[in-house]
Amino acid sequence: MAVTGPDFDKGEGLAPAVVQDDRSGEVLMLAYMNEEAWLKTLETGKAHYWSRSRQSLWLKGETSGHVQLVSEIRLDCDNDTILLKVRQVGGAACHAGYSSCFYRKWVDGAWVTEGERVFDPKDVYR
Amino acid sequence: MAVTGPDFDKGEGLAPAVVQDDRSGEVLMLAYMNEEAWLKTLETGKAHYWSRSRQSLWLKGETSGHVQLVSEIRLDCDNDTILLKVRQVGGAACHAGYSSCFYRKWVDGAWVTEGERVFDPKDVYR
Repeated sequence: MAVTGPDFDKGEGLAPAVVQDDRSGEVLMLAYMNEEAWLKTLETGKAHYWSRSRQSLWLKGETSGHVQLVSEIRLDCDNDTILLKVRQVGGAACHAGYSSCFYRKWVDGAWVTEGERVFDPKDVYR
Repeated sequence: MAVTGPDFDKGEGLAPAVVQDDRSGEVLMLAYMNEEAWLKTLETGKAHYWSRSRQSLWLKGETSGHVQLVSEIRLDCDNDTILLKVRQVGGAACHAGYSSCFYRKWVDGAWVTEGERVFDPKDVYR
């Protein structure tokens, strides 16, 4: 088998990427990569994704400055899911200002916010 | 906003679930849930997914006995991605016998296996 990047064909051109803090191990977010995002990430060392809502290549942190410096890339056994370990500049991956997008926890049938806000979105996205 | 489960409609009935070891923080796998899998997981405390390849509800560990006991459930800011923290019975989430499905690491343009095998698949799937 030739060594190649992830298999983007299985997900109609997209592969989900789990993004994890390389120090704390906290899962920060899930995003999607296409081949262009994959290649840009390798080339620059900064996480690039494919924005499904905007339908465009997305340098994470382009607006906020909170880029993700990639320290490790892993691939799952099916070749169709990526794991990125990153150093999150600014300390928050979530556009809502939390370190992780997973800031809500299921407790007794309801979602409870659990996570400290690193920044106020109003100060970052003007 | 009414408190509900994840938004399965955005992904045509499916939401990706990132699965993380509740002690080590290792990301074990990515799977997909539909509403039935979500409800079964809540009801039983064992991770259930929707198998896209088999097109059926899937109790993780049904064949191997290596079930995942769910200790925490989180939801992302878009309501469409789930994070499960689990206690992995048997110590390996991957059908290939590794603790994590992400047992290959990108090193200098190639995938290098890095991870110890917890079991030999031949001994588990007969």
